[in-house]
Amino acid sequence: MVHAPSRPPEGAPPVRINLYSDTQTRPSQAMLASMMSAPTGDDQSGDDPTINALCDRMAALLGKEAAVFLPSGTMCNVIATLVHTRPGDEILAHRTAHILTSEGGAHGALGGVQITGLEGPNGLFDADAVRRAIRPRNRNAPPQTMLEVEQTANTGGGTVWPKAQLDEVAAVAHEQGWVTHMDGARLLNACVASGISASDMCASYDTAWLDFTKGLGAPLGAVLVGTSDFIGHAWRWKQRLGGAMRQGGVCAAACLYALDHNVDRLAEDHANAKALARGLKQIPGVEVTDPDTNLVYFDPTGAGLSSERLQAELRMRGILISLLGGRLRACTHLDVGSAMIDDALTAIREALARA
Amino acid sequence: MVHAPSRPPEGAPPVRINLYSDTQTRPSQAMLASMMSAPTGDDQSGDDPTINALCDRMAALLGKEAAVFLPSGTMCNVIATLVHTRPGDEILAHRTAHILTSEGGAHGALGGVQITGLEGPNGLFDADAVRRAIRPRNRNAPPQTMLEVEQTANTGGGTVWPKAQLDEVAAVAHEQGWVTHMDGARLLNACVASGISASDMCASYDTAWLDFTKGLGAPLGAVLVGTSDFIGHAWRWKQRLGGAMRQGGVCAAACLYALDHNVDRLAEDHANAKALARGLKQIPGVEVTDPDTNLVYFDPTGAGLSSERLQAELRMRGILISLLGGRLRACTHLDVGSAMIDDALTAIREALARA
Amino acid sequence: MVHAPSRPPEGAPPVRINLYSDTQTRPSQAMLASMMSAPTGDDQSGDDPTINALCDRMAALLGKEAAVFLPSGTMCNVIATLVHTRPGDEILAHRTAHILTSEGGAHGALGGVQITGLEGPNGLFDADAVRRAIRPRNRNAPPQTMLEVEQTANTGGGTVWPKAQLDEVAAVAHEQGWVTHMDGARLLNACVASGISASDMCASYDTAWLDFTKGLGAPLGAVLVGTSDFIGHAWRWKQRLGGAMRQGGVCAAACLYALDHNVDRLAEDHANAKALARGLKQIPGVEVTDPDTNLVYFDPTGAGLSSERLQAELRMRGILISLLGGRLRACTHLDVGSAMIDDALTAIREALARA
Amino acid sequence: MVHAPSRPPEGAPPVRINLYSDTQTRPSQAMLASMMSAPTGDDQSGDDPTINALCDRMAALLGKEAAVFLPSGTMCNVIATLVHTRPGDEILAHRTAHILTSEGGAHGALGGVQITGLEGPNGLFDADAVRRAIRPRNRNAPPQTMLEVEQTANTGGGTVWPKAQLDEVAAVAHEQGWVTHMDGARLLNACVASGISASDMCASYDTAWLDFTKGLGAPLGAVLVGTSDFIGHAWRWKQRLGGAMRQGGVCAAACLYALDHNVDRLAEDHANAKALARGLKQIPGVEVTDPDTNLVYFDPTGAGLSSERLQAELRMRGILISLLGGRLRACTHLDVGSAMIDDALTAIREALARA
Repeated sequence: MVHAPSRPPEGAPPVRINLYSDTQTRPSQAMLASMMSAPTGDDQSGDDPTINALCDRMAALLGKEAAVFLPSGTMCNVIATLVHTRPGDEILAHRTAHILTSEGGAHGALGGVQITGLEGPNGLFDADAVRRAIRPRNRNAPPQTMLEVEQTANTGGGTVWPKAQLDEVAAVAHEQGWVTHMDGARLLNACVASGISASDMCASYDTAWLDFTKGLGAPLGAVLVGTSDFIGHAWRWKQRLGGAMRQGGVCAAACLYALDHNVDRLAEDHANAKALARGLKQIPGVEVTDPDTNLVYFDPTGAGLSSERLQAELRMRGILISLLGGRLRACTHLDVGSAMIDDALTAIREALARA
Repeated sequence: MVHAPSRPPEGAPPVRINLYSDTQTRPSQAMLASMMSAPTGDDQSGDDPTINALCDRMAALLGKEAAVFLPSGTMCNVIATLVHTRPGDEILAHRTAHILTSEGGAHGALGGVQITGLEGPNGLFDADAVRRAIRPRNRNAPPQTMLEVEQTANTGGGTVWPKAQLDEVAAVAHEQGWVTHMDGARLLNACVASGISASDMCASYDTAWLDFTKGLGAPLGAVLVGTSDFIGHAWRWKQRLGGAMRQGGVCAAACLYALDHNVDRLAEDHANAKALARGLKQIPGVEVTDPDTNLVYFDPTGAGLSSERLQAELRMRGILISLLGGRLRACTHLDVGSAMIDDALTAIREALARA
Repeated sequence: MVHAPSRPPEGAPPVRINLYSDTQTRPSQAMLASMMSAPTGDDQSGDDPTINALCDRMAALLGKEAAVFLPSGTMCNVIATLVHTRPGDEILAHRTAHILTSEGGAHGALGGVQITGLEGPNGLFDADAVRRAIRPRNRNAPPQTMLEVEQTANTGGGTVWPKAQLDEVAAVAHEQGWVTHMDGARLLNACVASGISASDMCASYDTAWLDFTKGLGAPLGAVLVGTSDFIGHAWRWKQRLGGAMRQGGVCAAACLYALDHNVDRLAEDHANAKALARGLKQIPGVEVTDPDTNLVYFDPTGAGLSSERLQAELRMRGILISLLGGRLRACTHLDVGSAMIDDALTAIREALARA
Repeated sequence: MVHAPSRPPEGAPPVRINLYSDTQTRPSQAMLASMMSAPTGDDQSGDDPTINALCDRMAALLGKEAAVFLPSGTMCNVIATLVHTRPGDEILAHRTAHILTSEGGAHGALGGVQITGLEGPNGLFDADAVRRAIRPRNRNAPPQTMLEVEQTANTGGGTVWPKAQLDEVAAVAHEQGWVTHMDGARLLNACVASGISASDMCASYDTAWLDFTKGLGAPLGAVLVGTSDFIGHAWRWKQRLGGAMRQGGVCAAACLYALDHNVDRLAEDHANAKALARGLKQIPGVEVTDPDTNLVYFDPTGAGLSSERLQAELRMRGILISLLGGRLRACTHLDVGSAMIDDALTAIREALARA
């Protein structure tokens, strides 16, 4: 969970550079136009042609049999748990995984599972970490049934899981008879950054999903993919959770538009993130991660301002940035151009110079 | 749950009259235009101005302190259970209530509660039925904590709960210390039919909600209202269930449009339903309910065709109608004009005449 | 749930005739001696020889592959639900079933299921009642997966389900692909009363259990039976629920003793119940059920005292009797001899005569 | 969870020294005699005088208002979670806590919570570890509501939490508004080893429990204590989980006997454990923990035999010992005298000498 200052400070100007999150992208006029002209139907009856087209396309893109359209990525994760596990089971995921830290304890509340957090740098873990976490199979230990990865690893730094590492941890899981699930909130960022196709990236994962509200710029929606049987069960939970929409094709149209227009351009976001990181590194005392994708974490404390203080200073200059676990996180996305990066760097330097 | 023929029969023409459900209304061009121009923001941060405007308006309309925007009516019901009850509790509702029959067992699955179905004609029950269902308060009986009504009662025949009866059953509940919750999927149909304001209709209910995807014609969305404290807790569950959307204002705009343009016209749907019922009554052997609102249930068996057969015959004539518990249900809505009613009656008479 | 006066009234003598419940039988000296000499081991490791002997014997008696020893009948029912169903499923049972009325809503709380109550006289229902309750199989209706019966039907009047009726309702369930489960809290009362063996009685039920703390007179314990696979899963839930005991053989010994010594004598309890019912019928104004087994329900209102009043009057005469749903329930068991029945009848007549 | 060889190896003699677990103690003749003469009643009605006496005594001993008798320690932990938390909450406990590793995932399955494991040596953690685990309070993070400690820390080495450290971690929890709960499976071992009274040991914990089946030697039973209000709610869950017994006084009598006769003698078990550890340390290559109480963990690998091999060798010499996480665990208890310790050391030396 990232945090903006809860209210703009007294006298703060409007936000002109929003580095807070790619979830805050606004639908473009062209995207809105595509929504307006989309054919729709009743999704609960399986009759929305735009949703059906999106699901077909996503199943093909991620290399799985079938897909289901849902209002959010959190619902994708929750449904994966509800279908893949039974109450009392244990899921393994990175200690910083979204399912563990940022879904309100939903997997326990709704699925009755416990999640054990694995350690590893930058939100990634390796096959040995998985093996060390294997519990004995007896009546007392929680049965382990699912391994989850987050591609890219958000709080790990927007890190891209190398394909080989993804496959290695999945192989340990499958040896154990576990299901593998990929939280692909920013999956296409990983694909664009690494040049690996989405279907290859997901190949050793039983289920995966993609969020359209982040760098892809759609107002809402995520698509979960897996076998046809899995998606059949997922639909039951979509109904139960209240994720079944009616003429949801209006929103699915924005997702289709995003697939056509907003994927390749993620490379620009990554370039902007790298430019920002380079600039920050030149400021003495600032500690910066090397961004794989569109997230730059940095700590300005050594340059004279705490993260909280610098966040507030930037807000007074019309720049919104988030604070997470004591560090600042800048997120690049389609509403942030390269000139804004220069502008933001100037503002940061200036604020720190005054400190 | 209503049922369409699962696939159009071989050689069936396109649907030209859709009496299947008001959930199948398509957003109008004007509604779409309102969506396109709506200001948006990040709903998860509470920053979507269109969603906020809709919530403010709905809280005022239903006479409660606060409101939350959700993707569906089912999620409204599920969240009411999750906030108002604890696992092991019992909810009282009509035997035919949507929460009991048509939400996939979600209230047990997600909330750990059991629902006891009360008896009563047309989907309504009275204060005595509630009193008879009161369990002893001891360690063994499930603790009863919530009473639920559905206004209008869908499978009861689109019946309008009289205001006095709503208040009487709520009074018994409150005497017992229970919470009262109103499933207002078609609440405004009840208000328009009875001339009673929405806030009066909900006055003795702690929480209530309105669905925008039925006669109001929006593509998706429902709004749940209650005290500010209730809505605070509801937000936690909105996150957990995956109902938090990003730039959901695009969809909330359609709901605001519906409040402005599609409420008073529900009277036309009711008039059309009455006209349809009058026409059906004139066909010897057809049994018809008197519609309070926009739902007409009828059984053509006495006129020579089973419900299933007549449903199929009408589909071959381009008319879609639903089948529910052995009877046919015709639903009027903004995509059904009075000429279509005449047309449908002609088709029904013709199909039955040939039988 | 049955109710004793919560505290003895002022000046009440000690209880000399306990018709309150067969759950209140005390272990006899001979039973205690069998407990004292029983070999024990660690049940959690499967090493308690007395528990193992009891389980082997119960599996054979009820004609199933395997068995598990548990602290109570409620835990048997809860585990059946946890193994046989998944959250969101629906169980069908009689409206007055113990699982619905007297287990604190445990099946929703712990298993996430809803229970739909069927109607029928004396706690029994027939195949048609089951058929009428079948829901459509679609994404919205709760999936129905289990049928439950209670043999004997406690609040139905200690009624014995006829073997043919048991088989008929089970056949409908199996046609639907549902599991069948028998709550056999007083199963051996049904067997002794009908002359049908326990294994025949359970033959069309996938799982069943017997309680040892009722007419069988043991201090605690119940045994659940089913396939070996079912019992394997049941053990996991026994651990989770905290039903795994250590040297539980001490208690299992009492159950083995009861099987050897306290089964045939249930016929005496039934004879005593019939004698009590005959006597009560001779009192003008008293309404009495005909007991199949050891439970006699009667309503003295027509004879001049309410059930509550007569309960209190009897307590002042040293007789404890229970009150359930407005009627009195007298329960015969091994601590109630035939002379006590005469004595109780005298007291009842006397109390009513004074009214 | 500790592991015995699942079956005795071919040709293995009967077990003559059982160092496997204090859960395997057998009730003594004097304990059995106390069970036989105990007055009993119906516990579900609150009428078992022996259970009531045990609860009164335990509430006094642990310094809380009220108590409830349950079949196992696992049920005590599960009920604490069910009463203290709501689904979606997070519990903090040591990474090796019984609730996390050895209750089959019950807390997620039955209570819908997630448990986050804290790090720290020997099964203990400090106030800083608690502080570092505090999550932000927002809509996305799981709400943290309970801190749990295990006194003694079983897989930490039977370690005694120092009173000051218990109070410090509880103080952090209470600052945060969390509830504190103590798993006191071997609480009296900690009290005897440290000379601190049980009520002082629990003073900063809202609820606590004691298991009678470990060093105290009773066949079954545990008692959970807390406020009267807490125990009132605990009773509801006791019913739901199926932990309500009938004439459970038979078993409670053994617990009362244990309080009278088997507490002070825990010092002998601790002395025996120390003697065993001293002996093991003299064998070159064996790594041994210093036992605070009655558990000795050691690793013989450096002396030429793996833990698995030495376990098997000892079993062939009639000595049962457990294997846990790659190490051997020897547990002393009332069925293990000091001569047996010498005997076991001789056998270990001999087996390693041959390696």
